[in-house]
Amino acid sequence: YGKNTIKFLRLHKEGKKHCVKEVEVCAHLRLTSPQEYLEGNNSLVIPTDTIKNIVLVLAKKNGIPSLEQFAIDICNHFMTTFCQVAYVKTYIQEVPWQRLHEDGVPHVHSFICVPDGIRFCEAEQCRNGPLIVFAGIKDLKLMKTTQSGFEGFYKNEHTTLPERHDRILCGELFCKWSYGECKDFDFDCIWKKIRECILEAFAGPPDCGEYSPSYQKTVNSIQMLVLSRVSQVQVIEVVLNNNFYNVVDMKNLGVTNDKEVLVPVEAPYGSCACTLGRKKFFEA
Amino acid sequence: YGKNTIKFLRLHKEGKKHCVKEVEVCAHLRLTSPQEYLEGNNSLVIPTDTIKNIVLVLAKKNGIPSLEQFAIDICNHFMTTFCQVAYVKTYIQEVPWQRLHEDGVPHVHSFICVPDGIRFCEAEQCRNGPLIVFAGIKDLKLMKTTQSGFEGFYKNEHTTLPERHDRILCGELFCKWSYGECKDFDFDCIWKKIRECILEAFAGPPDCGEYSPSYQKTVNSIQMLVLSRVSQVQVIEVVLNNNFYNVVDMKNLGVTNDKEVLVPVEAPYGSCACTLGRKKFFEA
Amino acid sequence: YGKNTIKFLRLHKEGKKHCVKEVEVCAHLRLTSPQEYLEGNNSLVIPTDTIKNIVLVLAKKNGIPSLEQFAIDICNHFMTTFCQVAYVKTYIQEVPWQRLHEDGVPHVHSFICVPDGIRFCEAEQCRNGPLIVFAGIKDLKLMKTTQSGFEGFYKNEHTTLPERHDRILCGELFCKWSYGECKDFDFDCIWKKIRECILEAFAGPPDCGEYSPSYQKTVNSIQMLVLSRVSQVQVIEVVLNNNFYNVVDMKNLGVTNDKEVLVPVEAPYGSCACTLGRKKFFEA
Amino acid sequence: YGKNTIKFLRLHKEGKKHCVKEVEVCAHLRLTSPQEYLEGNNSLVIPTDTIKNIVLVLAKKNGIPSLEQFAIDICNHFMTTFCQVAYVKTYIQEVPWQRLHEDGVPHVHSFICVPDGIRFCEAEQCRNGPLIVFAGIKDLKLMKTTQSGFEGFYKNEHTTLPERHDRILCGELFCKWSYGECKDFDFDCIWKKIRECILEAFAGPPDCGEYSPSYQKTVNSIQMLVLSRVSQVQVIEVVLNNNFYNVVDMKNLGVTNDKEVLVPVEAPYGSCACTLGRKKFFEA
Repeated sequence: YGKNTIKFLRLHKEGKKHCVKEVEVCAHLRLTSPQEYLEGNNSLVIPTDTIKNIVLVLAKKNGIPSLEQFAIDICNHFMTTFCQVAYVKTYIQEVPWQRLHEDGVPHVHSFICVPDGIRFCEAEQCRNGPLIVFAGIKDLKLMKTTQSGFEGFYKNEHTTLPERHDRILCGELFCKWSYGECKDFDFDCIWKKIRECILEAFAGPPDCGEYSPSYQKTVNSIQMLVLSRVSQVQVIEVVLNNNFYNVVDMKNLGVTNDKEVLVPVEAPYGSCACTLGRKKFFEA
Repeated sequence: YGKNTIKFLRLHKEGKKHCVKEVEVCAHLRLTSPQEYLEGNNSLVIPTDTIKNIVLVLAKKNGIPSLEQFAIDICNHFMTTFCQVAYVKTYIQEVPWQRLHEDGVPHVHSFICVPDGIRFCEAEQCRNGPLIVFAGIKDLKLMKTTQSGFEGFYKNEHTTLPERHDRILCGELFCKWSYGECKDFDFDCIWKKIRECILEAFAGPPDCGEYSPSYQKTVNSIQMLVLSRVSQVQVIEVVLNNNFYNVVDMKNLGVTNDKEVLVPVEAPYGSCACTLGRKKFFEA
Repeated sequence: YGKNTIKFLRLHKEGKKHCVKEVEVCAHLRLTSPQEYLEGNNSLVIPTDTIKNIVLVLAKKNGIPSLEQFAIDICNHFMTTFCQVAYVKTYIQEVPWQRLHEDGVPHVHSFICVPDGIRFCEAEQCRNGPLIVFAGIKDLKLMKTTQSGFEGFYKNEHTTLPERHDRILCGELFCKWSYGECKDFDFDCIWKKIRECILEAFAGPPDCGEYSPSYQKTVNSIQMLVLSRVSQVQVIEVVLNNNFYNVVDMKNLGVTNDKEVLVPVEAPYGSCACTLGRKKFFEA
Repeated sequence: YGKNTIKFLRLHKEGKKHCVKEVEVCAHLRLTSPQEYLEGNNSLVIPTDTIKNIVLVLAKKNGIPSLEQFAIDICNHFMTTFCQVAYVKTYIQEVPWQRLHEDGVPHVHSFICVPDGIRFCEAEQCRNGPLIVFAGIKDLKLMKTTQSGFEGFYKNEHTTLPERHDRILCGELFCKWSYGECKDFDFDCIWKKIRECILEAFAGPPDCGEYSPSYQKTVNSIQMLVLSRVSQVQVIEVVLNNNFYNVVDMKNLGVTNDKEVLVPVEAPYGSCACTLGRKKFFEA
């Protein structure tokens, strides 16, 4: 297969207001015949340069109504235009430009980059198969300074980790979900709702939080809340990269450190992941 | 000289609310004698490990009231404790953790990382010299989709750039300023005010913006506004890394692209910088 | 599942000579029950910290005879020690330290890091399934300044790429292969042989090279040569990230540029990949 | 001032052999008047795009006989062509392409990237001032597995580091030197000689090495050897980023670890630097 990445900016106006989307589009194609690999026959090969042109022309003509709709448009274009394409996958991620505000007033044409979680989506299709749409968020860094522990784990002669009931829970979250048969979803609205679910399930109620007995359970809580609140989601995968922190032992320095100063533990570095669907299906 | 970097988390409580600061501290020391270099005599050398311990103990004892105050505390400690230290510089940057909010309610112990500009500071002192404090912001990515041009520049036989009066202005901003004699400044408040000045000078009025004839002039506008509004700033340096975008020529593709689709220009990649002080002093 | 990364150095002596291996080990585990996700029951969970201890103790006891053997040792340990482990995968990559030489004389204990392709391997096992071993090389950057073209490709109204018969072929190669039933292979020797095959197939004969009609065909040539020369390889996957270069048009500058000055094309950025096995099996 | 970065490839032939240089050129300019900053008057500004064109045309016309000569050519061009330029600095670094060899036979047109230390240079000139040339190497990673210690350092109540006489010495080296009045130096030859000096001073004799009492002393040994062997070097700066490793304590795991397994210490992370000249001048 071949894979191609294109970055560009799409501008449009809504009244006087300027709007901007900066995206990185990655298109994977697999052809019906591998003759270019085996025989060096390029007659079916769609050059990277042509793929770039197609993506840019589609962006010009259709705009980017939502990331997901643009990914669907690209898949449809390749499937309907090129009979030698057996499979197409489009991945799109967005540069998180946000409109600037001055004293609460939105600026007509100025933007600031706020990377607190990157939005992405995928659309994927085999010839004669259904078009499947995924969406997700990545690089979302979250921390709970309390209400997290890790106890009752398996122990043997290689265990040195103490049990802890008040540690830091900190990590980088990746979350990707699939939609069922895509009708006329409001992808932007659903995405925002899911982001809120993730934050709520991670943090718990604002006045007291909710105790997390492990990174794994927090992963599951996020999945359960999204599945219960957002009916359009069929399957949801969550990966949480764990950033551990240790309380610095200052006894030798004549100081008592009561979980006030902690240092990040670079290694071991862990992550836990789970994919959860609707019908008792899971692969943990 | 020697330089050392330490990362850590400082937690404290304000009533029921948990507060967190994650910082990276870099301490540079120069000793009165270079005998460890020339003779391999280590008797005056303060090991990296000891420097780390000192920074962590200071954080435990004093907390981090502000980045700047913590940098001052570290400088003072080294100058008063070690007579072999001829010069000390402390650089601190902060991981941009922000309190999570659910429906506008602040969460008691959960945070999200929002890197829309990184806050840093420096404190620097030679033995018998004054303590100088700098503060700044870096990695602040901004864009204006209109009200920017570049015309009337110098031309010769190597010029191929066309004049433009409606281009994209996009860049990554670095801004660093020095305070005069530091009395009891509210460093947090001043920093926020300067950040607002930067955004205002970059963007112009929210309803119409302000025309920028060059990256250089925008750099200067930022400096002028900060100096006029914030009396504590003595000298201000601004560096703007320019990310250029070109309107894609789609004529060969049978499409008219009226500044709707643009691609980033990776190279040439430019930046412009200027340092501006209060008394007609400048080095452009 | 859970994933954990550990970095460490393993030293040993051969006579007076010091030997060093610095590796990054990543262990993935999947347990028979997902109860830690669903119920917050940690009783079967093997903490990241324990996994780190196991890897370090195995390295101490067994050494790292080869990357592949060490990966096998780790898999075996987890499968035989923990009945709750349903699946284990171990990924190892090596920091490319090479012994220093002075005037051709090898140094007894000094090393230099030479990252001209990173060696890695994987061992993977499901309970009651076979242990499968993969090995590979990544981040191998290669260039041919001639004997490469791209012609006869598919054309339509979105095609703007000209045909070229003397372009630059430059890319970053990823190559991963699986061994069949692992007996007593000399993994180090095979790995070196495969690296040589890759370079030979990429470059062609030293006096004249060999014409490449596309990145895809070069990928295939590498696979065919490895499969024909190295009988232990069962399946081989090659991914080539393409770094395109364009000849700079200097006509407007009054200069004729005869493929002497070229600039890299950052986007579109492409890659092509192919997996090839022994028995007419392929997925292109 | 303004700064611009351009990347490109320069090809030429020597007989049948193809030769390649890929470089990144960064040009800093300061103009005699800052009017573009203060007044938005662009009439003296040399656009980034023009600078790019000039560098590419010079590369086409002159080739890149050596990095240093090319940097000198660029400085000269700007100083003689533009009377509004008050200061110019050119920084060039090279992508480390090396010719491929098959069984010892050099390949006519194929190359591999071998980043074991990156070569760079700088040329700098103020109007009416001398042209100063610097050269250097960076990102050179070296390790000694023995013959290194750190003892007799300053101790107080914050000291927890034990004395060690057999630790790992590992680091990333940056080295930059200035030439005096540049006549017709063979820059390539001198650079190679200095690289050899660095390796020799770092490692000591191949059969036994040489004991290093500190990173600082190793820095100084490198400087002394270069100054004694290479008469063209006037001043030499060395920065060594220290990568510390700790022997893993395995007592709790029932194993004795005799400096066989070590883990990298990510923080504190240190570096030491020294600049040394010929006439008793130094700034440590």
